[in-house]
Amino acid sequence: MKIVQITLAIITSAMLLSCNQNKEKMENTKQELEAIFPKGELGSKDLFTGNAYFIGLVDADSTFTTAIGNVYFEPGARSNWHSHPAGQILIITDGIGYHQIEGKPIEIIKKGDVIKCPPNVRHWHGASADVGLQQLYIIPNTEKGIVEWKEAVTDEQYSANKK
Amino acid sequence: MKIVQITLAIITSAMLLSCNQNKEKMENTKQELEAIFPKGELGSKDLFTGNAYFIGLVDADSTFTTAIGNVYFEPGARSNWHSHPAGQILIITDGIGYHQIEGKPIEIIKKGDVIKCPPNVRHWHGASADVGLQQLYIIPNTEKGIVEWKEAVTDEQYSANKK
Repeated sequence: MKIVQITLAIITSAMLLSCNQNKEKMENTKQELEAIFPKGELGSKDLFTGNAYFIGLVDADSTFTTAIGNVYFEPGARSNWHSHPAGQILIITDGIGYHQIEGKPIEIIKKGDVIKCPPNVRHWHGASADVGLQQLYIIPNTEKGIVEWKEAVTDEQYSANKK
Repeated sequence: MKIVQITLAIITSAMLLSCNQNKEKMENTKQELEAIFPKGELGSKDLFTGNAYFIGLVDADSTFTTAIGNVYFEPGARSNWHSHPAGQILIITDGIGYHQIEGKPIEIIKKGDVIKCPPNVRHWHGASADVGLQQLYIIPNTEKGIVEWKEAVTDEQYSANKK
């Protein structure tokens, strides 16, 4: 009988270990953001606060007149203030972040959201403080220009109330 | 002693059940495609073979002159032949599929791929036979038009050699 008990105890321990490993895998999967594209290059400290990684997907040309790329913002990272002569569309593919058009409240943006910023309007975008952000950007009508970079978003601006 | 054995047996059974449930969840996660956007509406049988679900994300307007949406193709589903007056860009966010420009071999497309189809060129796209496809489409310069639909892709065309 003792052998049976010991065997059961060993089986129980092995299953407990296996269960915990499975749970760990699931939690890791949950915490990591979905990366559809390669991470790309670290964005310049002159244009971003914190670590933002950038990869170009479509270069502007005379046929499509559209520039497309992906930015991965680590938690707390954000762009400087900037504007686009023909505006910009953001598609959030994972994570949680912020977008602010100058003079308006910061909006919380997350996986599945689509955000438009009108032409020649100052805005910034980036990750939330605790969760990163994966975002595609689409700049249409690039014959009008692509981007005009401005000053950094201060910690006070980044920490302001969110709507 | 019998009580201890029965207790251990119950614990073992409960853990086995819990383990299996976790495994099932992980396997489901692996098999299902990543859905960033709502599935949307089933595409018309006049325009698609098999089940293709469509959701519009950005409607064409005079500011951005760009139409964006997501299509989820179930395995085996594909669009009819069609063309775009200003061309089209596809961004594959999950799964495996096919894209063919008329007169060229079928290309295999997968998560992370970006495909351009030039203006006024006939093409079709869809899922592979065994794995579905999640794809964003971007149609620039919509003032020139959006899409011109043509005939269905036959089974022979769909089953042709892939490059």
